[in-house]
Amino acid sequence: MSTDYVTQKGQAFDRAAFESLLRRKVFLWQSFEPYGSVKGLFDYGPPLEQLESQVIQIWRDHFIRSEKMMALKCSMLTPYEVLKTSGHVDRFADYMCKDPKTGEILRSDHLIADVLEARLKSDKEARGEKVEEKEEDPKKKKKQSKAAKGAVKLDDAVRQEYEHVLAMLDDYTGEGMGELIKKYDIRNPSSGNEVEPPVSVNLMFQTQIGASSNSPAFLRPETAQGQFLSFQKLLEYSDGQLPFASASIGYSFRNELSPRAGLLRVREFLMAEIEHFVDPEGGKAHPKFHTVADVKLPLLDRNTQTSGSTKPTMVAIGEAVKTKLVDNETLGYFLVRIYQFMQKIGIDMNKLRFRQHMANEMAHYASDCWDCELLNSYGWTECVGCADRSAYDLSVHEKATGTVLRAREQLKNPETIEEWVPVIDKKKAGPKFKKDAKAIENALEALSQEMKEKLQITMESEGKAEVPVEEIAAGKVEIDTSIVKFEKQKKTITFREFVPNVIEPSFGIGRILYSLMEHSYWTRENDEARSVLSFSPVVAPIKVLVCPLQKDPKFAPLTAKLEEALDNKSISFKIDQTGVSIGKRYSRNDELGIPFGITIDYEALDDGSLTLRDRDSTKQVRASQAEIIKAVSRMVKGKETWADVVARLPAYEGQKETAE
Amino acid sequence: MSTDYVTQKGQAFDRAAFESLLRRKVFLWQSFEPYGSVKGLFDYGPPLEQLESQVIQIWRDHFIRSEKMMALKCSMLTPYEVLKTSGHVDRFADYMCKDPKTGEILRSDHLIADVLEARLKSDKEARGEKVEEKEEDPKKKKKQSKAAKGAVKLDDAVRQEYEHVLAMLDDYTGEGMGELIKKYDIRNPSSGNEVEPPVSVNLMFQTQIGASSNSPAFLRPETAQGQFLSFQKLLEYSDGQLPFASASIGYSFRNELSPRAGLLRVREFLMAEIEHFVDPEGGKAHPKFHTVADVKLPLLDRNTQTSGSTKPTMVAIGEAVKTKLVDNETLGYFLVRIYQFMQKIGIDMNKLRFRQHMANEMAHYASDCWDCELLNSYGWTECVGCADRSAYDLSVHEKATGTVLRAREQLKNPETIEEWVPVIDKKKAGPKFKKDAKAIENALEALSQEMKEKLQITMESEGKAEVPVEEIAAGKVEIDTSIVKFEKQKKTITFREFVPNVIEPSFGIGRILYSLMEHSYWTRENDEARSVLSFSPVVAPIKVLVCPLQKDPKFAPLTAKLEEALDNKSISFKIDQTGVSIGKRYSRNDELGIPFGITIDYEALDDGSLTLRDRDSTKQVRASQAEIIKAVSRMVKGKETWADVVARLPAYEGQKETAE
Repeated sequence: MSTDYVTQKGQAFDRAAFESLLRRKVFLWQSFEPYGSVKGLFDYGPPLEQLESQVIQIWRDHFIRSEKMMALKCSMLTPYEVLKTSGHVDRFADYMCKDPKTGEILRSDHLIADVLEARLKSDKEARGEKVEEKEEDPKKKKKQSKAAKGAVKLDDAVRQEYEHVLAMLDDYTGEGMGELIKKYDIRNPSSGNEVEPPVSVNLMFQTQIGASSNSPAFLRPETAQGQFLSFQKLLEYSDGQLPFASASIGYSFRNELSPRAGLLRVREFLMAEIEHFVDPEGGKAHPKFHTVADVKLPLLDRNTQTSGSTKPTMVAIGEAVKTKLVDNETLGYFLVRIYQFMQKIGIDMNKLRFRQHMANEMAHYASDCWDCELLNSYGWTECVGCADRSAYDLSVHEKATGTVLRAREQLKNPETIEEWVPVIDKKKAGPKFKKDAKAIENALEALSQEMKEKLQITMESEGKAEVPVEEIAAGKVEIDTSIVKFEKQKKTITFREFVPNVIEPSFGIGRILYSLMEHSYWTRENDEARSVLSFSPVVAPIKVLVCPLQKDPKFAPLTAKLEEALDNKSISFKIDQTGVSIGKRYSRNDELGIPFGITIDYEALDDGSLTLRDRDSTKQVRASQAEIIKAVSRMVKGKETWADVVARLPAYEGQKETAE
Repeated sequence: MSTDYVTQKGQAFDRAAFESLLRRKVFLWQSFEPYGSVKGLFDYGPPLEQLESQVIQIWRDHFIRSEKMMALKCSMLTPYEVLKTSGHVDRFADYMCKDPKTGEILRSDHLIADVLEARLKSDKEARGEKVEEKEEDPKKKKKQSKAAKGAVKLDDAVRQEYEHVLAMLDDYTGEGMGELIKKYDIRNPSSGNEVEPPVSVNLMFQTQIGASSNSPAFLRPETAQGQFLSFQKLLEYSDGQLPFASASIGYSFRNELSPRAGLLRVREFLMAEIEHFVDPEGGKAHPKFHTVADVKLPLLDRNTQTSGSTKPTMVAIGEAVKTKLVDNETLGYFLVRIYQFMQKIGIDMNKLRFRQHMANEMAHYASDCWDCELLNSYGWTECVGCADRSAYDLSVHEKATGTVLRAREQLKNPETIEEWVPVIDKKKAGPKFKKDAKAIENALEALSQEMKEKLQITMESEGKAEVPVEEIAAGKVEIDTSIVKFEKQKKTITFREFVPNVIEPSFGIGRILYSLMEHSYWTRENDEARSVLSFSPVVAPIKVLVCPLQKDPKFAPLTAKLEEALDNKSISFKIDQTGVSIGKRYSRNDELGIPFGITIDYEALDDGSLTLRDRDSTKQVRASQAEIIKAVSRMVKGKETWADVVARLPAYEGQKETAE
């Protein structure tokens, strides 16, 4: 574990204590516990489920409503063909090695890293050097392996080779890793057995749709593909005008071979993905960029990383785009909006940076990519990827299906060109196709140039051809030369047709939630047992703890009145009527992150006034129920802070808060 | 299609026109259209995605927040063993028949119904009777089959037999259906081929977790199982107190063999399921039942159905529970809360009924079950099931896993009993198990009585046994007779242990949304082309249409000011600055269900006043921006109606609304 990772109060972060809190307050647990649990699958209990729900609501408001994005919900089950085209069938894979004797399956890169790191550690011990616990990286978490026992000194040259291999591991192919395994005699640490050569294993969950086995399908690995395939609908909805963005909040799946690092690498996860479609001509300008140009972001660019530094620089985004540090306005605009979103939900902004992808990290088609990384006790963690996917996805789907996935721009100066058009003998087509004739005509016209040419060639050689027509019951139609032929004709072009480029901010909600929980965690001074989750009032799962001072029926009417008032404002609350001290009640609910406490005490019985306690400062104010409700209501909406309330309402010092 | 299904204005419902609107305004479409679409999978476009989001928010507020339910999110991927125990592996299935020549797969009950109904229709035609288009039932939607062509008269006896078979079809086993197919020579209507005998096909999507094929898993068919398996956590979170309810909003999957009826029968669907855990002793009383006892519900009970009537009676729920028409208070309470939820989201309450399950419809363990059915153009459709699942699920999981899934009640009069307890030799256990000793001790104590007895028998014969211990790294421990034995000991019981019963209201969100859209649809008088979706302001996907009168830069400052004010209130809006008439702009946005329109006209340029138009009445008021925003803000929160606003603000009659 990282030794330098600290809480927001600068305290050493104790992950064991933190995890114990999450378990105790049922934030999350591994799924199917009574059946022995399944790695990489987690259930969220009430506090985390509600935290997620609030974070999603803020995301919807911040992006979908405020930016007028087109919300989409697409299917998780995805046919084989779609993911074959997108490249996931071939490339969404990890290499694994099998231990032939135990049947154990190991991720090849993990295996090599584990063994070489263990040997380097052992070497250090043999040399009598201090062995530092390295910052834990979710990709290369160390394992206590048998090989590490009994310190063994390495040759200097070997040591250097190992270090070089570890630094470059991400660049190795399966074959390359196979050679490493042979060369360095890397074996399964838990059995000592030799392993089989690396084999590529696809990480998608496979299933089949319907009863017939010729409809193989996968659970989608990202929500993006459904959005690309909806492009025509979205373009229609936006009256043909670009730029526009779609947004989808939904689940994706990744069949990890050996899931590690808790919520940071799971098999089933919620994503929020935006696909912003933009005309590649015009430099990908964004109409609202000027409103954010002065916002400074912590940017860690490619060159800085190459120079060996990991320290980001605060740069105004306007400047960053001007100097081409960030490729274009749209990418820059989204980096700012991501930053503002993180601020809204209560991320510790000192634990956030934007890291540019190195050239070898990016997909081959991407033109620039920045990750919003959050620091947590596992290290810097990619929580939002913000990539320019260029025209790649729309182009490959268009090519695979023949469906036009393009936008148009009206030209100021029309041009004349030659293109393939269907010439239909309507006297024959009408009687033959009857009510479908119009749909078929439209379908023929909508075909791509390539498809039209291909069909003409087919018809010239075979006299007929088959064309898919979605809009009619049969789904396809056979045409022949007596009815249709495709001709090259001159045409005046008044529109420019283009494949939009896509800027894609993609949020991993689980990773953000996990980081948010770590960022919110600290312990009270002089009392480590009193831990607190300082969730911002806008995201806190429960907003108010209601505490009648005693188990005394006298308090019932005021309690009921307060409940009704909170219900009327749709403010979630919890009542704690147990006999223990107010201090103890507050203390144990601080662990749930409830930001406010309202106490009904004997003074309340006299004048109806209530006390309102702030979780973080433990300070209190006293006022009428109406005033208290108003203050809470404004704070949970983010319209007022505790400082505002303290300035407005009289302080209360009556009850001394102890954990007794 | 039903000929008697009408819109809320009493107009004949035109499903083709309605579906055309949904397509035109991109509410939904079959997924993966460029790849030829997949049946039973749908994508939601912006209007429907946002409608769903708002309905879910209301659901969360109405149930989770207001009833203080424990929100849960459980995994969709579910190991084989869990669904084997729950009964889904064996019983979640349909019978299908294969056409051996074409490979086509047909649901056996659909096949029989299609063919016999076609013959009956043909018989009627042959007799010269008028053939009525029967109300379409999603389960038995008719197909235009070849067999129907050329009218053939049947013997009276045969006709009666067919009618009897159709009425009883749900009661036939696979074998029974096989006999029917043989007896009546039922063939595949689309090929005329004989079909193979019915085979049971499981309806779950199967996959595997991890790389090894010995981890078979399914996509869950309901969200309930994850909630049952979380029971211990929930009990802990509620400090051991019953009753409590968990609630989960999540996706489930059903691999339909031949999906039909659009959104009503899909393969991937959002559910909102509540599991209310209650002590079976004490008649399943509900603490808040008295608050709803007077609410009258349209109940269609079992006896009424047996008598042949389908007309519900309005009965006060207090009366219904008293007379045992509805089994218990908790079930009754939920029926009322479901009714109120439907009212809130804008369901046409004349198209809602609660239908009690017939004895043969219920799961064998259920003690009572009522469906909330909504009437739409497909007929009465189950949208919420409200079942008493008794102690079935917790009991079977406890039995299968040995994990105690029970609650406790403190006894007023303690009793003495005999039970199996682990006797541990701590001097040996300590050194052997080291830091795990305590966890192992707890695990041994937590085992069920049956498991303890079984372990003792195993140890007596083999000297040792293996026990699963979740809490330790190895996940299990081997114990032997030198360290542990299980003895029968006398014990004073101060608690009563019991398996809670579960009342389960289960909402099919897609079906509710579809019915809501149909209930909201109507056309303007004297102009069928002007259709409207009258979504209630609280659920409408977009709340306001902003219309500057002309494409005139003069309107820009006021438009910007209005946009800012709406943004500040988080009210979603759309701007229509096209040059067409205001009437036309309103008219085309009525189809999106936008409840309010704000026009910025020349008068606005003078005095800043705006007009506010109500979609349903097309009436307008005129007031300052602040007043208009306040009115809209209150209406979209459900705190004010248009009638309230009209009473408060001056009417405006200036612009005449025409569709041009």
